[in-house]
Amino acid sequence: MRDAYHEELDSLTGKLVEMTRLVRSAISRATTALLDSDLQLAETVISQDTEVDRLFAEIEATIFDLMARQQPVAVDLRMVITALRMGTDLERMGDLAQHVAKVARLRHPDSAIPPELRATILEMGQIAERLVTKTGGCIASRDVESALELEHDDDAMDRLHRKLFKTLMKPTWQHGVEPAIDVTLIGRYYERYADHAVRVARDVVYLVTGSRPHEINLTG
Amino acid sequence: MRDAYHEELDSLTGKLVEMTRLVRSAISRATTALLDSDLQLAETVISQDTEVDRLFAEIEATIFDLMARQQPVAVDLRMVITALRMGTDLERMGDLAQHVAKVARLRHPDSAIPPELRATILEMGQIAERLVTKTGGCIASRDVESALELEHDDDAMDRLHRKLFKTLMKPTWQHGVEPAIDVTLIGRYYERYADHAVRVARDVVYLVTGSRPHEINLTG
Repeated sequence: MRDAYHEELDSLTGKLVEMTRLVRSAISRATTALLDSDLQLAETVISQDTEVDRLFAEIEATIFDLMARQQPVAVDLRMVITALRMGTDLERMGDLAQHVAKVARLRHPDSAIPPELRATILEMGQIAERLVTKTGGCIASRDVESALELEHDDDAMDRLHRKLFKTLMKPTWQHGVEPAIDVTLIGRYYERYADHAVRVARDVVYLVTGSRPHEINLTG
Repeated sequence: MRDAYHEELDSLTGKLVEMTRLVRSAISRATTALLDSDLQLAETVISQDTEVDRLFAEIEATIFDLMARQQPVAVDLRMVITALRMGTDLERMGDLAQHVAKVARLRHPDSAIPPELRATILEMGQIAERLVTKTGGCIASRDVESALELEHDDDAMDRLHRKLFKTLMKPTWQHGVEPAIDVTLIGRYYERYADHAVRVARDVVYLVTGSRPHEINLTG
């Protein structure tokens, strides 16, 4: 009985890591669909989000089963509670990648991104990918130090987000209101995606240490 | 011992309802700050969000304590798990009200909302208030039918959100890019706020019935 219990607990980690893999792929392909005005790629991102939702439903079912039948305590209890929260954040990241793909689809065959902003959007997409990949690594390895680093990695996203708005508000902006709205929303989607990745990393810190990141004072 | 346990469980409901009260007040005052360009009111919304965060921290602490010491089962277990999720959503609603207030502060003494959009924003604010008030009632009364209604109440918000974009994209839009960006973000904040209120209501349905709203077939 105890063995099946630990197998179920371990399966949570595996499924969460798999969710990070899926939502990394989704944001990567959504960014490409956006920059290449690739309708087919956008459609696959949109339709494949059900995979993310399905995985999260499995995680939820496992959690409820574990809690009802096993009454986990201490670190096991933290595992099931944080798994629920991490799953919620990762599921939302899938939605956000889907939102990016939907803008690509809406503007196809045109591009939603004016030429002078393509480099910024590409970089936001790349940072999003790096963040979620690192988050996946943290979940798998339970590496607190690297989870704590993610807070700072996210700063780069915030800088790009501000740069985006600056470009939109320049007097030299020639593209009018509609592309400005698209870019505003897309920028927000990437920024929120990164924010959720950081939240997942914070939950890894809590899972391992029992403390919130702001309570931890790492020296050396 | 058993009595203290039930008192702790009941305190969760009370605190969640209190959170709905705080975030309702926050979105109400944020909307007024936005429409009146009232800097002082915007500042109070921004600073008082810590109250919401503090309440959520209390809820989290109670949940962890309950789970570690009491191993709740069945409906009690659903209560602690959904309380954690409802608290997360409500805390986010507080953030979103704060975001609205920050736009009001950023544009003060000007208004972020052009005259032709003031009625729409006012209505979005009012719907947000009605949704969260109803959600609070559902948490207190555990009224499934009224929780299920919230899905439809949210449709009005989505309609207004689409109307907002239509206005921004009209050739008659005379306010340029900056106000369009502000309105795009503000519209998104209200829409997300409503979405979180609906999620909380869904958790009430799950709490009471053990089923997700889409699994329930209400007739008559």
